[in-house]
Amino acid sequence: MTAYLSSAEPGFAQAFETLLASKREASVEVGETVAAIIADVRKRGDVALIELTTKFDGMTLDAAGLRFTADEIEEAYRAVDPDVRSALELAHRRITAHHQKQMPEDSTYTDDIGVTLGSRWTAVEAVGLYVPGGLASYPSSVLMNAIPAKVAGVERLAMVVPTPKGVVNPAVLAAAKIAGVDEIYRVGGAQAVAALAFGTDTIKPVYKIVGPGNAYVAAAKRQVFGTVGIDMIAGPSEVLVIADSTANPAWIAADLLAQAEHGGGAQSILLTTDADLAKAVDAEVDRQIGTLRAPDTARAGWNEFGAIITVATIDEAIALANRIASEHVELALDDPQSVVEKIRNAGAIFVGHHTPEAIGDYVGGSNHVLPTARSARFASGLGVLDFVKRTTILGCTPAALSELADATVALAEAEGLQAHGRSVSIRLNR
Amino acid sequence: MTAYLSSAEPGFAQAFETLLASKREASVEVGETVAAIIADVRKRGDVALIELTTKFDGMTLDAAGLRFTADEIEEAYRAVDPDVRSALELAHRRITAHHQKQMPEDSTYTDDIGVTLGSRWTAVEAVGLYVPGGLASYPSSVLMNAIPAKVAGVERLAMVVPTPKGVVNPAVLAAAKIAGVDEIYRVGGAQAVAALAFGTDTIKPVYKIVGPGNAYVAAAKRQVFGTVGIDMIAGPSEVLVIADSTANPAWIAADLLAQAEHGGGAQSILLTTDADLAKAVDAEVDRQIGTLRAPDTARAGWNEFGAIITVATIDEAIALANRIASEHVELALDDPQSVVEKIRNAGAIFVGHHTPEAIGDYVGGSNHVLPTARSARFASGLGVLDFVKRTTILGCTPAALSELADATVALAEAEGLQAHGRSVSIRLNR
Repeated sequence: MTAYLSSAEPGFAQAFETLLASKREASVEVGETVAAIIADVRKRGDVALIELTTKFDGMTLDAAGLRFTADEIEEAYRAVDPDVRSALELAHRRITAHHQKQMPEDSTYTDDIGVTLGSRWTAVEAVGLYVPGGLASYPSSVLMNAIPAKVAGVERLAMVVPTPKGVVNPAVLAAAKIAGVDEIYRVGGAQAVAALAFGTDTIKPVYKIVGPGNAYVAAAKRQVFGTVGIDMIAGPSEVLVIADSTANPAWIAADLLAQAEHGGGAQSILLTTDADLAKAVDAEVDRQIGTLRAPDTARAGWNEFGAIITVATIDEAIALANRIASEHVELALDDPQSVVEKIRNAGAIFVGHHTPEAIGDYVGGSNHVLPTARSARFASGLGVLDFVKRTTILGCTPAALSELADATVALAEAEGLQAHGRSVSIRLNR
Repeated sequence: MTAYLSSAEPGFAQAFETLLASKREASVEVGETVAAIIADVRKRGDVALIELTTKFDGMTLDAAGLRFTADEIEEAYRAVDPDVRSALELAHRRITAHHQKQMPEDSTYTDDIGVTLGSRWTAVEAVGLYVPGGLASYPSSVLMNAIPAKVAGVERLAMVVPTPKGVVNPAVLAAAKIAGVDEIYRVGGAQAVAALAFGTDTIKPVYKIVGPGNAYVAAAKRQVFGTVGIDMIAGPSEVLVIADSTANPAWIAADLLAQAEHGGGAQSILLTTDADLAKAVDAEVDRQIGTLRAPDTARAGWNEFGAIITVATIDEAIALANRIASEHVELALDDPQSVVEKIRNAGAIFVGHHTPEAIGDYVGGSNHVLPTARSARFASGLGVLDFVKRTTILGCTPAALSELADATVALAEAEGLQAHGRSVSIRLNR
């Protein structure tokens, strides 16, 4: 049942804690199964990868068929509705333009005693991109993961996508082609993650794996972490709308449903200073659900995880929003700008009545891979920084080394690391 | 036995692969023990934390004694040798100055169709810092972890350090005081990580946990990841020295031993174009080991994990270095600058004959928490970016929303997300 809370009621603090702690994801214990799959692919390579794909995806294939050919990709691209194709191309242009501004700059300087300190950024050479099959096989997610990698300068971007019974979403291949993905393989699950991490005859290993997946994929990413880098583990999507009396209830209802229709634990919360708006939105959600072609998922999501919280002041809403730390925060307010700077924990903030969250999902230009499950308290959305790494550069003149020698030797000795100190003093004939 | 390889020999490719794949860490399976400890602290809070500390650290304490008092910290600070204290203060100034340059800048712009796109950085509010007890209780590591957090603007930095039998390294407390750590608790192990992640009556929860630790600590960090953020899992330290005939064998030997004396799987590798240098360094390592006050760890480390590789050209050395992706790379070369830009995978590069790696460990100014075990292929050293997170800001004018509407609806429909499209069209009366 959708939660209705008011900060004026006596049990509010406890009810809010319960809402914060609510678990929205079925926890499936698949660690051992996944470990066995990874060990198998690591040992038997392509042979295991093919057997597992046959078993889990209900299809036959051989090593030569693991990789999509250029012709197959081209054919899929042509099969996509031209309107969708040009929408993907618009999204590609806008996402690329925004992410180009995220490229960090190298910096080198020499300080007053002659020590040169530098930070140099280089792209991760090879990256794997996991794309789910079936219902959650979203071309927009291909763009959102692939574009920052390509903007960063990743030379080899290898995508994997399962094709149950041989079926693939042509729009996913079209998005990959538009984004410049270098290789695409028709494999998925933990076996695909293992192949990317350790390599097989057909799939060369990568250094980092990104992209969403089911419980098996998430477990596999956790297990190969260390051998390769991984991105964050994505949880169910969520939106928090902060609205005052100037908000349009029908628009807010539409935004809440746009989140609820994802299913799988997706959560929509309305935080408002206006009790009348709260009622109007609630009624409007019910009305709009009835007009959806496939209302069941949205209805179930809203009923199970939705919440409407009324508060006395916008400051109170801000304080609660910072505790919720939502993936998406919409500010449907008369004066949203003054609130933006006070929202500290959020993956993305959507400012004003004319910025529905869906704009950020597709063509706004920003990334839609954002921290979920309160992780906006400590994590950022996906971006160019996820595909580069910084190397520190340090250089001393003989004089600088001499100036720093006594302190280095003192600390090395205090830590019981005599040879550390000697590596300095030996250069100074001390 | 120290490995001696030459790229000119027929079995080199295989021998190099073996070196790359060699495991330098005892893998201890502690997952279940750690899970039980975490569950206990989560359930019973301070009571469990105290019981476990009594059991593992061999000491008695009560809730009031969990936290070091200001007087205790001040007393420890005064107990530290003044030379060490001023070395810590020099290190603090230099590390702070360098990390201040890492603070990312906010950026907001409005594009040609009226979409405002922003990236705003805010500090993680509360961070936990794990500091090992016993032999590896290094004051320099306290500085390296605490300073970037404080430069980033972390308001609450809570440190935990186990004090077996009640003994603590005063220099560790002094470093914490110098770095501005806000709270220090005398607890360690998985129980300390659990307390930081979930909170107890005495220790408020944090949003991110950083710092090195033993296998239990590493496992605990992995298990609480998601509830809180964590830094990378640190492996044994390593150095790769690239040297030509201009290098001084005694200096290189000292650098190799400075790494080997860490023990615990630490690795030193020399890559050189000069076979005579290789021999001279080898002899010099043997000679210098004999002059150390405590030679056993360095000797064992060099014998078990050390390697000397001779190559024909510097370009060959660079190619191998990029595959090794060492935490530390020293360039003991006549012309190191021309090589710096070709080393792509390295945590830090130490340029020229007068820059021993130990300078970077203490007072160079850069961070000594760097990616190990080949993870420099995809990861960076610790820095200010690890203590901030980026929030995306998106704002549309009605005209901008209208311009992006068709593409958004086309993509939403292609992905079967009707309510996403409607959240846009409803605002445009479409």
